[in-house]
Amino acid sequence: MSYQDLDFETDVFDKEYITVADRREAIVRGGRHLFGRLPAAFEGVHQIGVIGWGPQASAQARNLRDSLGDAVRVKVGLREGSGSREAAIEAGFTPENGTLGEMYEVIGSSEMVLLLISDGAMAETYADIFAALRPNTTLGLSHGFLLGHLTQRGESFPEQVDVIAVCPKGMGASVRALYLQGKETNGAGINASFAIEQDVTGKAVDRALGWSVALGAPYTFQTTLRSEYLSDVSGERGILLGGVHGIVESLYRRFRDQGMTDENAFRHSTESLTGPISSTISKTGLIGVYRQLDAEGRKVFAEAYSVAYPVGLELVHEIYDDVRSGSELSSVVLAGKRFTRFPMGKIDQADMWLVGQKVRADRVEQDIPLDPFTAGVFIGVMMAQVDAFMELGHPYSEIANESVIEAVDSLNPYMHARGVAYMVDNCSITARLGARKWAPRFDYALMQRAYPAVDAEAAVDTKPFAAFENHVIHEVLRVCAEMRPSVDIFVQ
Amino acid sequence: MSYQDLDFETDVFDKEYITVADRREAIVRGGRHLFGRLPAAFEGVHQIGVIGWGPQASAQARNLRDSLGDAVRVKVGLREGSGSREAAIEAGFTPENGTLGEMYEVIGSSEMVLLLISDGAMAETYADIFAALRPNTTLGLSHGFLLGHLTQRGESFPEQVDVIAVCPKGMGASVRALYLQGKETNGAGINASFAIEQDVTGKAVDRALGWSVALGAPYTFQTTLRSEYLSDVSGERGILLGGVHGIVESLYRRFRDQGMTDENAFRHSTESLTGPISSTISKTGLIGVYRQLDAEGRKVFAEAYSVAYPVGLELVHEIYDDVRSGSELSSVVLAGKRFTRFPMGKIDQADMWLVGQKVRADRVEQDIPLDPFTAGVFIGVMMAQVDAFMELGHPYSEIANESVIEAVDSLNPYMHARGVAYMVDNCSITARLGARKWAPRFDYALMQRAYPAVDAEAAVDTKPFAAFENHVIHEVLRVCAEMRPSVDIFVQ
Repeated sequence: MSYQDLDFETDVFDKEYITVADRREAIVRGGRHLFGRLPAAFEGVHQIGVIGWGPQASAQARNLRDSLGDAVRVKVGLREGSGSREAAIEAGFTPENGTLGEMYEVIGSSEMVLLLISDGAMAETYADIFAALRPNTTLGLSHGFLLGHLTQRGESFPEQVDVIAVCPKGMGASVRALYLQGKETNGAGINASFAIEQDVTGKAVDRALGWSVALGAPYTFQTTLRSEYLSDVSGERGILLGGVHGIVESLYRRFRDQGMTDENAFRHSTESLTGPISSTISKTGLIGVYRQLDAEGRKVFAEAYSVAYPVGLELVHEIYDDVRSGSELSSVVLAGKRFTRFPMGKIDQADMWLVGQKVRADRVEQDIPLDPFTAGVFIGVMMAQVDAFMELGHPYSEIANESVIEAVDSLNPYMHARGVAYMVDNCSITARLGARKWAPRFDYALMQRAYPAVDAEAAVDTKPFAAFENHVIHEVLRVCAEMRPSVDIFVQ
Repeated sequence: MSYQDLDFETDVFDKEYITVADRREAIVRGGRHLFGRLPAAFEGVHQIGVIGWGPQASAQARNLRDSLGDAVRVKVGLREGSGSREAAIEAGFTPENGTLGEMYEVIGSSEMVLLLISDGAMAETYADIFAALRPNTTLGLSHGFLLGHLTQRGESFPEQVDVIAVCPKGMGASVRALYLQGKETNGAGINASFAIEQDVTGKAVDRALGWSVALGAPYTFQTTLRSEYLSDVSGERGILLGGVHGIVESLYRRFRDQGMTDENAFRHSTESLTGPISSTISKTGLIGVYRQLDAEGRKVFAEAYSVAYPVGLELVHEIYDDVRSGSELSSVVLAGKRFTRFPMGKIDQADMWLVGQKVRADRVEQDIPLDPFTAGVFIGVMMAQVDAFMELGHPYSEIANESVIEAVDSLNPYMHARGVAYMVDNCSITARLGARKWAPRFDYALMQRAYPAVDAEAAVDTKPFAAFENHVIHEVLRVCAEMRPSVDIFVQ
């Protein structure tokens, strides 16, 4: 199924079409004023089991509980001996009030099971989980990994359950944080996609939309489970995590080599990117950054964009090919099996990030420079991912969220607050592994090919930059921005 | 089949056993004095078809022709329109003298077909190649990729042919260069492994040994095709190419950050590693480097070794898992399909390698420092690969060659002569892609975890270093060294 064939019917919510250029996409807007419709959306559901307590699970369980009140019980399921038990209890999910239990018990007693454990754990336990699901219940995912894993093994989901996905386009921490901001500003939240893989109850669409609205998604767009995991797993390896990490490492070194102090090099690379560049994109779009520059700044931006774009395009295609072939998922599963012997290492112990701690401590927000070279590299790689995802047939909403909005409204504010590890390591294990794998690739490719081309004043392909000013993505972002209130992203 | 079960019988050559610690491995020594036995080894073979003209193919075709004289015709087979045709003709393989033809014609008219095309090309064409092979002929490989590819697809080799491998443990250029040196010094050459995957003619062992002796291998040891590709593809991603590249990049930055000039940082990192460290290992083994250091140098070496070893061990296991699962081979095949749009980029355009050009131009060989920190990092990662391969059940000879001997006697001299790209990009496409993928990973892991541990004087695991002085690898290397004359590696 391609994006052209996507559409859905809902009796509970209000479907709208958004139209950009040649495409029309069906969406549902969210907001707290719709919480009264949740009982209708979850008709037949007495209990939602949230399995796991990672960043997504803990955010979603709390948002769902707050949104649903007494209408539907939200019960957390953990494996025996889980190290997260205390944290769940502290958040109010307890055995005493019937909202915390052993995972298979919770799976077997819920009409809707949100399976939010790590991908590695899913690969280990999916057969037992499938066996524990009752017929005519709904299995919910926030990520298409399991479909990829099953496909690779020639297996499939159990036939007698709905299989749906609601995938917030932001890390778990911001799914919770923006939901709380939504109490003040109705509609604040993290956008989500939804997908209907199987619908045996005939209620799959409304359950998915109800789930997304209850999470606080300002708007919910449709995708397929396959399209979701291809763009999600590729996007986090690309500009969202791996790309942005590799970019700032390479720029920090470059600026130091050009004579900046350590602190200034950090300001012009990381601080500039996570601060003014990201917030300008959030408020005025990608083109807003460019338009804000003076003539000399625009020249520098264009040069940087032109050399970074082809490097980004090549890497995003490599990532996407490896995700689509199953290699990347297979690596994630194998890495999970090595964790006992080789736990995941820290990524923020090198000098650069120690400098960053000092710079953040002394930060005066309005003094952070908007460096045009940094902006050009970042937006060049971002646009490469946008173009690759367009070529690969993803819906516009998915492209905008997986390449731009998630970066500037969810992830980069975390790096801005406390550095690269605070962003990367608050994401899923699959994302953390992917960021560790691909950040160095972006760094080397920029260092080996993009920057030498600038320094040698080599002839570069100017077509991608020429296409930038009138790119359809600007209109897509403008329409997406209209769907939600402008909220200053605040990360503690 | 594990290394314990390996053994073979030959009527033509002299099998010997080498014994190290708890293991006995059967081998055959080479040398020009054995060329008179080649007609017996190739009994029934009127023509050897060498398919391809990459680094291995062009070296092997010339060595075979020189060794065999009039006894067996060596005919090169190229695909229609091959860009290598002129080079083959220049080397004396011409249609006029009957030693150059279209590849399928050559395959169909040879009793022994050495398939030395790139892995990507093999993946594209293997079905046609299998169809062109006559029954009761011998298919020769220099690399186990095709077995991995077939296994992944649930397919197998055609039943009616021998399938053998002879795998020189060095890049094609040095297979030729050391063979030529063998004219002066009998026995000089590149060691090789051999494997018998299928033996329908009953002559597979002698054909393999004859092939290896004719290539000039000082000694030939046995392995399986699967063991070969696992260690070969992993080893080149590890210390042989990816590892060594990442190591010198990370050390160059570190030394500069510590206040060295660009030139001195390059001398203490790359020059030291490819010069005195590699040549000392070649002449006196790994332990020889350590013993050459004074007390202070040994302390620095031990620190560097201790922090680099765990990083190396983790990465080699990750690489090996990804190779064994098929992910890495699948990525290679996919990369091949992208080459038209995204040709492989240069890896030596960054500042460091421009500095390196200057340093090499002014080089005084005996003034290159043997830096104990560089030596500790390099040998620490190398020993991690040795230990990983031992744990994973590889024969000692294979481990020594794939982790140490190939590095110091074949590859590093190329980097010493003209920089990193001259080493990496004279290897196979599979190796070049792997080096590009994994070098940045080694760099980041050292920068993020190994060096901060040294600087923080953190407690590190001292057991691996404690095991270094009495490690069995030293005896393995000593025995391997006895198998061949000491030759100064000379790269133009």
